Amino acid sequence: MGQQKDDVEVTDDDSESRKKIKTKELLKRRAPITGWLPSYTLGLFLQDFLAGFTVSLTEIPQGIAYAVIAGLPTQYGLYSGCMGCFIYVIIGSCRVINIGPTAIMALMSQSTVAAFGPPGAVLMTFLSGCLIFLAGLLNLGFVVDFFSYPIIAAFTTAAAIEIASCQVKTLMGIKGGSDSFLGSWETVFNRGSEFKKWDLLLGCVTVIFLFTVKEVGRKHGTLSYRKDWSKTKNLIGRFVYIFTLSRNAIAVIIGSVIAFTYHRRGYYLFTLTGSVEQGLPPFKLPSFSITHNGTYYSFNDVLETYGASLASTPIIAVVEHIAIAKAFSKGRSLDATQEFISLGLSNVMASFVQSMPITGSFTRTAVNHASGAKTTISGVVTGVMVLFALAFLTSTFAYIPKATLSGVIIVAMFYLCEFEAVTLLWRTKKPDLLPFAITVICCLFFSLEYGIFIGIATNMVFVLYSTARPKLQIEEICTAHGDGFVVTSKTGLHYAAAEYIREKILDKCCGEATAVIVNGEYVGNIDATVAKSFHTLKKELEGRNQRLIFFNFKKAVRESIIGIDAKLSENFRGGCLEDIFEDNVVRV
Amino acid sequence: MGQQKDDVEVTDDDSESRKKIKTKELLKRRAPITGWLPSYTLGLFLQDFLAGFTVSLTEIPQGIAYAVIAGLPTQYGLYSGCMGCFIYVIIGSCRVINIGPTAIMALMSQSTVAAFGPPGAVLMTFLSGCLIFLAGLLNLGFVVDFFSYPIIAAFTTAAAIEIASCQVKTLMGIKGGSDSFLGSWETVFNRGSEFKKWDLLLGCVTVIFLFTVKEVGRKHGTLSYRKDWSKTKNLIGRFVYIFTLSRNAIAVIIGSVIAFTYHRRGYYLFTLTGSVEQGLPPFKLPSFSITHNGTYYSFNDVLETYGASLASTPIIAVVEHIAIAKAFSKGRSLDATQEFISLGLSNVMASFVQSMPITGSFTRTAVNHASGAKTTISGVVTGVMVLFALAFLTSTFAYIPKATLSGVIIVAMFYLCEFEAVTLLWRTKKPDLLPFAITVICCLFFSLEYGIFIGIATNMVFVLYSTARPKLQIEEICTAHGDGFVVTSKTGLHYAAAEYIREKILDKCCGEATAVIVNGEYVGNIDATVAKSFHTLKKELEGRNQRLIFFNFKKAVRESIIGIDAKLSENFRGGCLEDIFEDNVVRV
Repeated sequence: MGQQKDDVEVTDDDSESRKKIKTKELLKRRAPITGWLPSYTLGLFLQDFLAGFTVSLTEIPQGIAYAVIAGLPTQYGLYSGCMGCFIYVIIGSCRVINIGPTAIMALMSQSTVAAFGPPGAVLMTFLSGCLIFLAGLLNLGFVVDFFSYPIIAAFTTAAAIEIASCQVKTLMGIKGGSDSFLGSWETVFNRGSEFKKWDLLLGCVTVIFLFTVKEVGRKHGTLSYRKDWSKTKNLIGRFVYIFTLSRNAIAVIIGSVIAFTYHRRGYYLFTLTGSVEQGLPPFKLPSFSITHNGTYYSFNDVLETYGASLASTPIIAVVEHIAIAKAFSKGRSLDATQEFISLGLSNVMASFVQSMPITGSFTRTAVNHASGAKTTISGVVTGVMVLFALAFLTSTFAYIPKATLSGVIIVAMFYLCEFEAVTLLWRTKKPDLLPFAITVICCLFFSLEYGIFIGIATNMVFVLYSTARPKLQIEEICTAHGDGFVVTSKTGLHYAAAEYIREKILDKCCGEATAVIVNGEYVGNIDATVAKSFHTLKKELEGRNQRLIFFNFKKAVRESIIGIDAKLSENFRGGCLEDIFEDNVVRV
Repeated sequence: MGQQKDDVEVTDDDSESRKKIKTKELLKRRAPITGWLPSYTLGLFLQDFLAGFTVSLTEIPQGIAYAVIAGLPTQYGLYSGCMGCFIYVIIGSCRVINIGPTAIMALMSQSTVAAFGPPGAVLMTFLSGCLIFLAGLLNLGFVVDFFSYPIIAAFTTAAAIEIASCQVKTLMGIKGGSDSFLGSWETVFNRGSEFKKWDLLLGCVTVIFLFTVKEVGRKHGTLSYRKDWSKTKNLIGRFVYIFTLSRNAIAVIIGSVIAFTYHRRGYYLFTLTGSVEQGLPPFKLPSFSITHNGTYYSFNDVLETYGASLASTPIIAVVEHIAIAKAFSKGRSLDATQEFISLGLSNVMASFVQSMPITGSFTRTAVNHASGAKTTISGVVTGVMVLFALAFLTSTFAYIPKATLSGVIIVAMFYLCEFEAVTLLWRTKKPDLLPFAITVICCLFFSLEYGIFIGIATNMVFVLYSTARPKLQIEEICTAHGDGFVVTSKTGLHYAAAEYIREKILDKCCGEATAVIVNGEYVGNIDATVAKSFHTLKKELEGRNQRLIFFNFKKAVRESIIGIDAKLSENFRGGCLEDIFEDNVVRV
């Protein structure tokens, strides 16, 4: 832009080539694939392929497990895992992120599925996508900034606890019961005796297996290759690494094999997932009116039932996605608008293949990154693998024991909990524990949707209160020509502070001093309420034979104050403090 | 307190006398009458009596008019005018304030009266009083600070427009119709032809009379006595002054006399107020369950119907009261807690004599002040006058023409509108026009209760947005030992700004410079989200071979940052900028 100012005369040729450059840049921004695809090589593809394959080993069992959390038939978890990647590869700006079903999104879909069955979740995906896309176009990215660390940590922890709680009864083989946090524990305590020993045994073994592998893997680190290691050691390292990453898949496969074997021999030991619909999802627009359990719901009925979750689902999706994108943008600043657009479109397109709401997954993105993914092509590989599973493996999914899936979910949720946030907040800022605690409690005992909004409101109250009570520094100065008070605020002056400042000054600036000097050095901006309050203050001080001086105020602030009463312009002074008294202007 | 630290050894005698002094001070604060009554003289009483009598000339017609606004039988307006003064005289801290029915409180009671009749308004008075009293005990006075000037001006203007609009049809003699802003204009336009010529004539004459007197009085000023005037001139001045102040009473009396005269002769020209119940109000607890129009409502039903107005009525009462108390505290700082307690108790006690919600009245307080009231005794005089009117004058009230009352209300509302706020906001701060406009529109077209809360929320969004986007000053400095960027924020750092700061620094501090120096001089406080963001930033900058330096941070802020990661303590530096580079600490 600066260049254009310097050389005003631009030839037509130049301006055209510039237009081309601009168009190219816009294209690169809006379809990042055009930036890196031309230089894409086979070597990069091999790396992407390996990473994508590894991620699919996580994604397939996760997809099935998350469908269970949402209360959807199993295949819907896999439907959710394919389309997002295909859209994101073209327009996504963060190369390693993996988009698809997540535990929290599944939990948020639970109530809509309960009300309307699968079409309810699919329509929610479509609507969330539209809203996120719109928010991107309207540049509403700043909304994400109001989700502070304590709130996100609290929400994640509460969601993880709720999800894990719901799975305890399934792990014990107890059928039915409520899906809320309190309800599921009630079921466990009231109907605990109904437990099925084989389900419970398999579930516990799964949990122990997964914990062990995770902790062993953690000890060995995720490094698969070290120069100072021998070839054998490196091979073992590589094996441990892949084994650790695919532990969920392994647990599910082993569980299914056991169940299948006994089933074939006529021993129906475990509660199984049951038949899964084979084949790829149909590609069609989501239905806007839904018939569920024989009742017809118009689009309006559906929207009414959605209620607050129509706001919270897209917001949580965006918050999760942006947090992950930021964590993996490694020092480059993130194009939030582009990420909103990508996530929005991914959801809209995903809804055409019967997906539940999707967003960036932290686990799978981490696996993708650790496995050496170079571009979003790795996501495409994962997507293709999921489609492959849908086309050819669904018949085997029927044999997955429910207890195994519950075990997988419970262990994953344990690692999702951010208990360490409590220590961290205690060490950095104790008052932040309050919004944290409020969010956890409200999310668990009321609902996730309201919990997070109540948490944010609490957090905002802190900020608003701090703007209402700025720290004022009041010093008395004595000069040869007179005494006065100097009032300095080191923070901005907002309307909520207007009366506080006036009262503080009236209260503290008593005595012989003839001048009250408000130091405007740090005041960047004031509003009408503060300006009016200064006007009142001036009159009140004059009633006490004191003069109000606005000292070193910036031009914009000065104009705001004079807007109230042009006479106030007499009260402005600049320069040096002593001069004020020498001028003798202090006398009223 | 400071004294107690100096001389630790306090004799029993001393501490006892000190306790006495403390008790006395507390008594003076909680029952201000104990402070001034001992030195009260007959001279002061005469001044208070004159002021109190003048105020009653305003209060009686106002009370009747406000009862009409609320939809209550006329006597309820007078019931509302007596008890408040008797309570406030003992515990009120502002000597000239007049507490009683106001136009806005009457408007806020309209919906409860429509739902439950008079008992609904009385119960609301009781509950509002309890809530205000409780808020006083809990020190919640700061809530009032969030009612900024644009919001209060907008709310008052909208309420005045709505009240005046409702009276237009009554002034024209049209019966019935809706009481909402839109509804009442609809009635006027649809049923305008039903107007009664005598009602309309009387109404218009009243309006013209009141406007003329008000403007003449304004020209002459409210000064009743001037030294440089002759005796005759002063007498005339005094007459004009009292005439101006009692213009409402005069209009009502003249209107009633005309109506009464014609009525006696058998000409029923005007719509009259109709029979008014004679006598003092019964003293009894308000009923918590209400039977209205044959339907029984339990306390829970009533609360449910109250809804948002259960929050907005006490809040608006408090905002009105505190604003008036501040305006008349003339340079002394106000004891907000005491005012909350006084207003709360006044409402609770007023509900025992069938009052609608009461609060400080701006008009009557101004009259009281201008008439030379010295203490709250003048309020007692007003209260006694109102009781007198109830006991002996109610039979004459029946002849007050409705059109006269409407005229009184319309003129009063015209002067209540704060249209000048628009010019003032335009001159001082244009963005403040947005919350103003939103509040006016929402109050008029939705409801007063929600309008004011939506307005406040809009206003808060401005403040929150400004905390999310602090102004960062980024300067490049070059020294003999190395280059760096100095980042200074002149406002506090709140969580919503955390990501913004990180991205700005990553974005702007590129290039050869090896150090990014964050100047903590103006940072008074940070929260965990900002601290975490600094931690991420440090790692990201290290990835670019840049070192993050926290320069001249305060101890509290430093501890918050170190709470995230103890290693960050290595990044703090104090002293002078150049030293940082000389130390060679800049290298990563």
